[in-house]
Amino acid sequence: MATSRSAEIRKDAVHNRWVIFSPARARRPSDFKAKPVPNPNSKTQTECPFCAGHEHECAPEIFRFPPESTSDWRIRVIQNLYPALSRELDPPPNIECGGGPVTVTGFGFHDVVIESPAHPIHLTDLPPAQVADVLLAYKKRIDQLRALDSIKYVQVFKNHGASAGASMSHSHSQIMALPIVPPTASARIQSMKEYFDQTGKCGICQIRQDDLLIDESSHFISVAPFAATFPFEIWIIPRNHSSHFHDLDSDKASDLGRLLKLMLVKMSLQLNNPPYNFMIHSAPLQIDSTQLPFSHWFIQIVPQLTVMGGFELGTGCYINPVFPEDAVKVLREVTIPN
Amino acid sequence: MATSRSAEIRKDAVHNRWVIFSPARARRPSDFKAKPVPNPNSKTQTECPFCAGHEHECAPEIFRFPPESTSDWRIRVIQNLYPALSRELDPPPNIECGGGPVTVTGFGFHDVVIESPAHPIHLTDLPPAQVADVLLAYKKRIDQLRALDSIKYVQVFKNHGASAGASMSHSHSQIMALPIVPPTASARIQSMKEYFDQTGKCGICQIRQDDLLIDESSHFISVAPFAATFPFEIWIIPRNHSSHFHDLDSDKASDLGRLLKLMLVKMSLQLNNPPYNFMIHSAPLQIDSTQLPFSHWFIQIVPQLTVMGGFELGTGCYINPVFPEDAVKVLREVTIPN
Repeated sequence: MATSRSAEIRKDAVHNRWVIFSPARARRPSDFKAKPVPNPNSKTQTECPFCAGHEHECAPEIFRFPPESTSDWRIRVIQNLYPALSRELDPPPNIECGGGPVTVTGFGFHDVVIESPAHPIHLTDLPPAQVADVLLAYKKRIDQLRALDSIKYVQVFKNHGASAGASMSHSHSQIMALPIVPPTASARIQSMKEYFDQTGKCGICQIRQDDLLIDESSHFISVAPFAATFPFEIWIIPRNHSSHFHDLDSDKASDLGRLLKLMLVKMSLQLNNPPYNFMIHSAPLQIDSTQLPFSHWFIQIVPQLTVMGGFELGTGCYINPVFPEDAVKVLREVTIPN
Repeated sequence: MATSRSAEIRKDAVHNRWVIFSPARARRPSDFKAKPVPNPNSKTQTECPFCAGHEHECAPEIFRFPPESTSDWRIRVIQNLYPALSRELDPPPNIECGGGPVTVTGFGFHDVVIESPAHPIHLTDLPPAQVADVLLAYKKRIDQLRALDSIKYVQVFKNHGASAGASMSHSHSQIMALPIVPPTASARIQSMKEYFDQTGKCGICQIRQDDLLIDESSHFISVAPFAATFPFEIWIIPRNHSSHFHDLDSDKASDLGRLLKLMLVKMSLQLNNPPYNFMIHSAPLQIDSTQLPFSHWFIQIVPQLTVMGGFELGTGCYINPVFPEDAVKVLREVTIPN
C-alpha cells in the first residue's frame, strides 16, 4: 500500500452526498491508468458526418464560428440527429412536484457542438484560444435557449470515448435544454442553501484548501473536490462568485480555455488517455434572486476509471479508492512535453 | 421505428426522480441485446478462491449453509478480502446532516455470499429452492448486523459480469452494512412520505397496473416500473405491505426464489446474457414506526445495456430508450426451454 490511510466516509457539502474512500481497494494512486480500449472507429475511420465537407449529412445547423465562414468553419453548433428530447413537441405546463407518478411531453432541445472540422483533432489538440471559442459557443447557444420561458435548465456536457457515452469519435460536446430543473441541480441548490443559512457564505467560494489545489489562473482554480465521487475527479471553479456559466466574457473564456486544456492534458497524460466526461454545473435559468448568493457554477471533469456496480446503483453512495489529496499530488507533478 | 411513441419525461414517485423516455434513440425493444463480452476468466479459469477446496484462500467465514457441512457446503457467507468499509474501525457518532464538509471513519461491514461451491454454476443455474437459500442467507446475515446499534442500513446487491462491477466470475453477491442511511434510501422514504401524506396510501402497494405486470406468484409480483431508469429494468415487489426484507420467512423465500430465478432467466435469454445488477431496497434499520406504512421493500434488477454519460452524471436524469410497457410485452413472451 502506498498510503497508510484508513477508510473514511466523507460528505460533500455541495451535493449533500456521501462518498466512501477505501484505500484498501486501491493500487497506488500513481498506478491508476485507463485500460487501453482501441476505438474501432478511430483506426479505420478518417471521415464522418461531423467532418468539414460532410455538413449535408448532419441535422440542421444552428450557427457556426466564424459566423460568415464557409468551408473554413472552426466550430459548428447543430441539432442532434437522434435527439433525446424533441423541439417539435409542446412544452409541458409548469410541473408541481410531489404526489404520484407524473408524465410530461419530452419537449426540449438536444444540440451538438462540433469542436473541430478535422476528424482526428481532439479538444486537447486545439490551441487554448480555440478551446475558449468552444466555451463561447456554449455561451452563445445557452443565451439563445434561455430566451425561452419553457426552458428551465441547460446541461452542457462532453463524452470522450465510447465507454464514456460518445457514439461519435469526432470531437464534440452536447447541450441539452430541459423543461425541468434536474435532480442534481435542485439538490445542489438545496444543499448550498443549507450551508449559506448556517454560515452566511457560499460553500463553493469556500473551496480554497491548499492540499486540494491542483492549479490556478487569473480567474479560475482547479481542485480535487474534498469528497470526490470518482478517482481523479477535477473541478474548475471561478475565483469570484458567479451563478451562471453564461455570464462568461471573452476575457474569462480565454483564461478558462487555457486551464481546461491544461487539466484535460494532465489527466490524459497521467491516466493513459482515459474515456472522460465533463459537465458544466450552472444555476437553473429562472432562479430566484435570493438564491444567487449560494449558486456558484463550476466544471466537473470525471475520468472513467472505475465501474458502477450494484452498491452505487442501490445506495447512491460511491466508493472512491483514491483520496483527493493523493490525486492532487499526482496531477501537480505531471509535466507536459513541449 | 417499431413504435410511434413520442418522447416523454416521467417522474418516478418512488424515488422522486425524472427519466427521459426517448424512442427516437432506440432500436426495436425486441432487438435490445447485450454485446457479447467474453469474460477472460470464465474461459480459462475453472477454479478460484470461492470454489470448494479453496476456503483457506478466502477471508474469514461468517457462516455456511448447511451449518454443519464440511466440504459439502452449498452457500458460504464470508468477509470480503478487500472490504470497502472496515469492521476494525470505531463506529462514528450519530451524524447530523447539513452544514459543511463532514468526515467520519470508514466503519462498516462488507461481506460476500458465495452462492455455489462450483465455479461454473451461476445463480440462474441453481434450482429455485437453492436461490431461496441464498435469500435466506442474506436474511440471516442482516439479522446479525441489525443487532448492532451502529449499523443504520444494510445494502444487499449482486454484480454479474465485469462491466457490472463483478471482480470475481464465481457466482456471488455482497452485503454492505453502513453507519449512515444512504442517499437513495433517504430520498425514497421522503418521496414515499409525500405520497402517503397526500393519498393515505403506500406508493409501492399501488403499483398494480396491468400493462406493467410481467409475472406474479403467491406472494410477489414482478413489474417494469412506470419510470424505469434503465431499459428492461425489473422490480419484484411483495404483494402485501412489508417494510424490511429481513422479515422474509422461508415460505415467502421459496416463492421469491422461484420468481427471482424466472426473471433473471427471462432477462438473460431475451438480452443475450447481459451483465446485470440486482439490489434489495429495504427500509433503514432504525426506522420510526410512523414511517412503516410508507416503507415497502423490493428487489430492483438492472441489466447493463446502456452507458452512463455526461448528461446522466451531470443532471441525475437518465435517458431510457425503451418504454417499460414495451419491455413488459417482450419479457412476457420469453419462453423458457425445458
